[in-house]
Amino acid sequence: MSEYPRTDRNRVRRLPKRGHYDQETIFSILDDGFVAHVGFCLDGQPFVIPTLYGRKEDRLYLHGAATSRMLQALQQGIPVCLTVTHVDGLVLARSLFNHSVNYRSVVVFGTATLVPDEDKTTALRIISEHVVPHRWEEARQPNDKELKATAIVEVVIEEASAKIRTGPAGDEPEDLSLPVWAGVVPLRLQYGPPEPDASLDPRMPLPQSVERLIDGK
Amino acid sequence: MSEYPRTDRNRVRRLPKRGHYDQETIFSILDDGFVAHVGFCLDGQPFVIPTLYGRKEDRLYLHGAATSRMLQALQQGIPVCLTVTHVDGLVLARSLFNHSVNYRSVVVFGTATLVPDEDKTTALRIISEHVVPHRWEEARQPNDKELKATAIVEVVIEEASAKIRTGPAGDEPEDLSLPVWAGVVPLRLQYGPPEPDASLDPRMPLPQSVERLIDGK
Repeated sequence: MSEYPRTDRNRVRRLPKRGHYDQETIFSILDDGFVAHVGFCLDGQPFVIPTLYGRKEDRLYLHGAATSRMLQALQQGIPVCLTVTHVDGLVLARSLFNHSVNYRSVVVFGTATLVPDEDKTTALRIISEHVVPHRWEEARQPNDKELKATAIVEVVIEEASAKIRTGPAGDEPEDLSLPVWAGVVPLRLQYGPPEPDASLDPRMPLPQSVERLIDGK
Repeated sequence: MSEYPRTDRNRVRRLPKRGHYDQETIFSILDDGFVAHVGFCLDGQPFVIPTLYGRKEDRLYLHGAATSRMLQALQQGIPVCLTVTHVDGLVLARSLFNHSVNYRSVVVFGTATLVPDEDKTTALRIISEHVVPHRWEEARQPNDKELKATAIVEVVIEEASAKIRTGPAGDEPEDLSLPVWAGVVPLRLQYGPPEPDASLDPRMPLPQSVERLIDGK
């Protein structure tokens, strides 16, 4: 897989050692999440909207109501920035200055185009399988009326960068003898016990999709 | 506490019943998180950068290296949008169309100003106490050199809205008899067992700040 070019837009300036530009790293961070924060500008005013996404190769898909302001704006072909962040831990140092966060984030730059009607089902399937793998085959698939009410945009990743911090606190040598606890407190997003719908036949077993989610895929 | 006005900028258009404009709701969602996705526009190009924040009353504080592009841009007084999102669960319906996510999100609009040198320590303390309460008193506080290397901006919340979805799947009546599992799979960000620094005296007990974090405060 290839590398994205480093430009004025995507180059990681602060702590450049934390920057990554290869598709393997970038795609794996994108695939570990399903909510992107999508930024766009209308008359110089920024908007940042949390949105589900799916990825296929170097394309991201976003969907929503056909009446959504975000999707209506994006399909005009304005520049879009999508950011996905995983917080992996709090890093506590002896000094407050060296406190940090372990994280993996990706910033994607691109432009959106509206997915034409005939490709909508394929694009929705990409999003669905990204968020809950295997669910597409289990549930009732969209009918014509539902497809009509849904808009989907495709964002080709033009430029992207990942930024990653891992590991322990980086204290100053002269602080190491201070009587202050230092270390990492890991953080992760965890699935809890599934809550079956009240109207469900209680004998119905958990579907494969949910079994896999809670087992960590 | 008061309500934010509903304007063209912050009004929740899609599913307006999910929209909230009161400070109590908005502040409680902001206080449940510590990473905001900060959006700003440079020549029509949107940037969305994940950043720690702290809140005091109707002000948010962001910090970083004095050389940070984001902080240098924001202190010019350009419009900024800060979004904080908590994903509380995946909502699986009988139909793919009615799949959803339980979430709480806040979108804040404002403009940033640079915190002057004499207020930097106070502002850093707000951020630190927001992310890890009680840590400020445990660790070594910033010295002059560290303060000099740090820039902090204050964003007064001019407008904001919260959007919340809770509860079970909303299936179509005609889908209820389908042999498809439906329900909610809860999701939460969870702290794991603290990992003390390798250089730490192993007899040093966990500090109050970490005890409280892992006990859920």
